[in-house]
Amino acid sequence: MPGVIKERLFTPGPTPLLMEAQARAMVANVHHRTEAFRQIMRETLDLLKYYFNTQNDVLILASSGSGAMEGSVSNLVSPGERVLVGTAGKFGERWLGLAEVYGIEAAKVEAPYGHPLNIGEIKDRLEKDGPFRAVYVQATETSTAVSHDVKALGEIVKNYPETCLVVDAITGLGTTELSPDEWGLDIVIGGSQKAVMIAPGLAFVSVSEKAWKMISSAKLPRYYFDFAKERKNQAKGETSYTPATTLIITLHSALQYIKRIGRENLIANAALLAEATREAAKALGLKLFAVSSPANAATAVCAPEGMDSGAIVKEMRNRFGAVIANGQGSMKGKIFRLAHLGYYDVPELFAAVAALEVALLKLGQKIELGSGVRAAQEVYLRQSS
Amino acid sequence: MPGVIKERLFTPGPTPLLMEAQARAMVANVHHRTEAFRQIMRETLDLLKYYFNTQNDVLILASSGSGAMEGSVSNLVSPGERVLVGTAGKFGERWLGLAEVYGIEAAKVEAPYGHPLNIGEIKDRLEKDGPFRAVYVQATETSTAVSHDVKALGEIVKNYPETCLVVDAITGLGTTELSPDEWGLDIVIGGSQKAVMIAPGLAFVSVSEKAWKMISSAKLPRYYFDFAKERKNQAKGETSYTPATTLIITLHSALQYIKRIGRENLIANAALLAEATREAAKALGLKLFAVSSPANAATAVCAPEGMDSGAIVKEMRNRFGAVIANGQGSMKGKIFRLAHLGYYDVPELFAAVAALEVALLKLGQKIELGSGVRAAQEVYLRQSS
Repeated sequence: MPGVIKERLFTPGPTPLLMEAQARAMVANVHHRTEAFRQIMRETLDLLKYYFNTQNDVLILASSGSGAMEGSVSNLVSPGERVLVGTAGKFGERWLGLAEVYGIEAAKVEAPYGHPLNIGEIKDRLEKDGPFRAVYVQATETSTAVSHDVKALGEIVKNYPETCLVVDAITGLGTTELSPDEWGLDIVIGGSQKAVMIAPGLAFVSVSEKAWKMISSAKLPRYYFDFAKERKNQAKGETSYTPATTLIITLHSALQYIKRIGRENLIANAALLAEATREAAKALGLKLFAVSSPANAATAVCAPEGMDSGAIVKEMRNRFGAVIANGQGSMKGKIFRLAHLGYYDVPELFAAVAALEVALLKLGQKIELGSGVRAAQEVYLRQSS
Repeated sequence: MPGVIKERLFTPGPTPLLMEAQARAMVANVHHRTEAFRQIMRETLDLLKYYFNTQNDVLILASSGSGAMEGSVSNLVSPGERVLVGTAGKFGERWLGLAEVYGIEAAKVEAPYGHPLNIGEIKDRLEKDGPFRAVYVQATETSTAVSHDVKALGEIVKNYPETCLVVDAITGLGTTELSPDEWGLDIVIGGSQKAVMIAPGLAFVSVSEKAWKMISSAKLPRYYFDFAKERKNQAKGETSYTPATTLIITLHSALQYIKRIGRENLIANAALLAEATREAAKALGLKLFAVSSPANAATAVCAPEGMDSGAIVKEMRNRFGAVIANGQGSMKGKIFRLAHLGYYDVPELFAAVAALEVALLKLGQKIELGSGVRAAQEVYLRQSS
């Protein structure tokens, strides 16, 4: 009945677009083999270093984050070498799939869905079952909305000069403090449709000197995702293949916005929204899916007993134009995920929680209207002056 | 401290922009003396008839709404004639100012701020103090957020064949059911930055046959706002002076959106948001400024005893990027106005109310967090299936 329903994304990617960056792309009638574009490319790579908090090289790839994940296997490993995968959800499992298609033996350390990886277990495995060419993990496992302790893991892998640590930080970047250089995160992977608040289509990858050394001798086949070739070209503001020009210009603009507000404030914003979302969910009698170490990027919430989470997703979309994510794989129907990374702010969280209250009530849940919002407001008040 | 703060307008004009219409303007590289533009102009005028709910001519002017108000005086009246003004706020007073600069004697029927016009009083005045060439009123007095009963007034003025009824419906259109042809609203005025959800810069005016007859003999001077000249040109898809092309193309797109969702649903949406806002304000212990007949376009709320409404405006802006309107003139500091016309939806209202709760609490008010949101949710639930 209400005539106006705005589409709003509360999904862990794509995320709401920064309109000032979108507008820049609208006027980006540029050829990529020009000094004008090379200048934008160089500035964007510098801004990415700020965003990644690293002095390592950062490369831009015209692909989704999964392309950079593939490249982080094919560039780093040679046939016959072994790798170690830490997995606790769908994206951890992707590392296993990648190793498999390249014929690489992957040992795995697994945590149940909803749990963070046991870093001690990875430490043991490195000690007793090595050598491994690389350790592959997520900073944030988006499918379960759990964060892993990549800092602790970095301190361990540092002691293995022949082992690289590869971190899928696709939803970790801009939502968690990361210190790749200090912590020894040799390869860090990002994607455009996440906290950097632009559309899908770009992947980013930072590469440490330790990783470059291994890359120089790694023998798996790679062509499109050839990091050394990209390094050489991108140092000149060029790319090996046609770059996604408008996305890069949008990225340039979005990173300028992030630099303006401050990376640490972008991260604090996600942390505040995450805590407020968790408190709101608890106030509504809902169970959080993350047993511990919940992510700042998104919050996974268990559907009430006997209710399919898909029904909540549907109510939110139909009534309020609010797109939230269902669970993936075996979690489908059991959880829903409310994201709060990137270009989200506090009033939007209030709106999402109020909408969720109405949706749950309409689905027959006993809900004290306004109580979730109150819990979110209280978190905001505690954390703001 | 939160890094991301989005600018959001809760003002009774400008209102939030419809992005799909904005995007159309971005690609509008068109000359106005071409068949391509004439086609857009003709279609836009047809869509405006739908939006106004009239078969009368509708004209587009490159001006703010005030330009069309001026034209509604200068086109209709001759020196020595008298007019009758119904005034209950700042925009009613504008009619008096317009009559004065043109040297036209204006009798007035006045209602105190916060009250609607007494239509019976206007009826008496017409009977006992005429003749009047025109009666000037607002459909919605935006400064006090009060609606006037223009339907009842139309039924009365219909009986005076030499008197036109002129209605400033700048915030009335798209928020209230209007039936200009049936009710005898001879001139109805609209503006672009209101419920039609585009930027400022255009005024619209519908003109009845009765009004055209008077216009043909009216002797006040007019040049830019010459309705008869515009009528002749716009019938051909032309304009007398350079039209604001991108705004007209944006308008074309926004009116297509409104036709798609339905004018009656746009109005119902504003009515729902208005009722929810009033109930939320009352639940928070706030007094509504409108004593009766509150507008659907905006809600005027009295600041708590001893608090300057400017402080609330400032908190909302600084904390939440939410721009709400202070009172105007003598109401400044005493009321604030939350608008809900045009491209607003229910989750945004929840967000605005939750933000207002926090703002008031921060200013020392005793507020039960979530109670205003709950009142708004309950209105939504009563009115939706």
